[in-house]
Amino acid sequence: MSSASQSSWEPVRKVRTYEQVMAQIEQRMLDGLLAPGDRLPSERELSQLLGVSRPSLRESLRVLEALGIVDVRPGRGPDGGTVFVGRPGGGFTILLKMQLALGHFSDTDVLRTRLMLEEWAVADAARNATVEDHKALRGILDQMDAMELTARDFNRLDTEFHVRVAESTGNSLASYLMSSLRTAIQRRMIDAYERLADWQETAKTVRAEHREIVRAIEERDASRAVDLVRRHINDFYEVEPFTGGTSRPTR
Amino acid sequence: MSSASQSSWEPVRKVRTYEQVMAQIEQRMLDGLLAPGDRLPSERELSQLLGVSRPSLRESLRVLEALGIVDVRPGRGPDGGTVFVGRPGGGFTILLKMQLALGHFSDTDVLRTRLMLEEWAVADAARNATVEDHKALRGILDQMDAMELTARDFNRLDTEFHVRVAESTGNSLASYLMSSLRTAIQRRMIDAYERLADWQETAKTVRAEHREIVRAIEERDASRAVDLVRRHINDFYEVEPFTGGTSRPTR
Repeated sequence: MSSASQSSWEPVRKVRTYEQVMAQIEQRMLDGLLAPGDRLPSERELSQLLGVSRPSLRESLRVLEALGIVDVRPGRGPDGGTVFVGRPGGGFTILLKMQLALGHFSDTDVLRTRLMLEEWAVADAARNATVEDHKALRGILDQMDAMELTARDFNRLDTEFHVRVAESTGNSLASYLMSSLRTAIQRRMIDAYERLADWQETAKTVRAEHREIVRAIEERDASRAVDLVRRHINDFYEVEPFTGGTSRPTR
Repeated sequence: MSSASQSSWEPVRKVRTYEQVMAQIEQRMLDGLLAPGDRLPSERELSQLLGVSRPSLRESLRVLEALGIVDVRPGRGPDGGTVFVGRPGGGFTILLKMQLALGHFSDTDVLRTRLMLEEWAVADAARNATVEDHKALRGILDQMDAMELTARDFNRLDTEFHVRVAESTGNSLASYLMSSLRTAIQRRMIDAYERLADWQETAKTVRAEHREIVRAIEERDASRAVDLVRRHINDFYEVEPFTGGTSRPTR
């Protein structure tokens, strides 16, 4: 017996109806028969075409919706229906939030992964950012200078800044990873900020460090940008040593 | 009017039943009331507790299952039911596959992101890998030396090798990102290998490069390991220039 035939055996696993539906939809995407902007047939029609019950079909559609692969729009008119989306949505953020809540990844892993992604992002942004990118980054920093911001709004702009740096690399997959991770931990970061005795003091440091990072990106100095962002993220943990708890901000 | 009250307004968005169910489950995880190994009440009981129909509840459960957050086991006995899992599952791979099929990310982005993750992985593995990690890596390379392997099995071991490198870093989140991406593109990589006139020739180069990478990791030489893995991944694209098609292997 040749090893090729030996190696072809695989353990049998029960495949659920919704998985079969999703596999067919995925195959149609790969075959180029489904593209962003395309609509699925109505639930009634599609359940007949696939030979599955409507509740089973609806389970598949909910999975696709939760993953951010389709957008389910109300109504039966030309604007209604299940439409394939053209840009990555919130699916990975939803997944990461739950994985973090279940403790699949430690706080240390989150911090180390953020360092990896952020260091890559500033280095690549220093190499690839355009003048428009520089302007956009400075625009966010100007908004962050407003003294009357709440901790929540300050944090939202903080996230926007870091995601915009990643977008300046021109690599939409890596910036998707970063923005998903950042958004998944945002609630915890805001909580941590709000617990700080004087978050405005911390905000001052953050503002100054962001300006330096943008300057390094504008001067196309990748290695300085990396050093700055590493210090920027590690700073908080050096002042308040990392304890592995769930309530640490991971700015 | 203070800016705090201005900033609290948010656009109203229709929240679906399954999203509300998922939000409650997530909150219970965050409150420490649901942990890996825990079971959800039966569908009948849970739909009553939440005041939702059983089809609606089942939609939420399917989403959690597809994300790899729960494992739905058949039967009503002590082994049956909906159980929260303790390790990250295939959810991100499923998502990435669909996003790639829809063209949310370009092949160039996939290649650049793989380079980022793989370079980080070998550098961190060179710093942190244990003697057990070294042995496991050599064990995979020994299996890859078997001459009678099919392209498919060779590729599977190739993925196993790269994922094992990432696991040697001790950072489970970053290695989850890498293994998910690698698994999402595996089908395409196998197809491309099988189309090569002589994939055994390519396999020889891959084998030799893997040995060199492991040697650099064992010698704790992070910068050499990074250079080697960068060349290892870029090699194919230099021989056959990157065309942006969907059929290129991205070893």
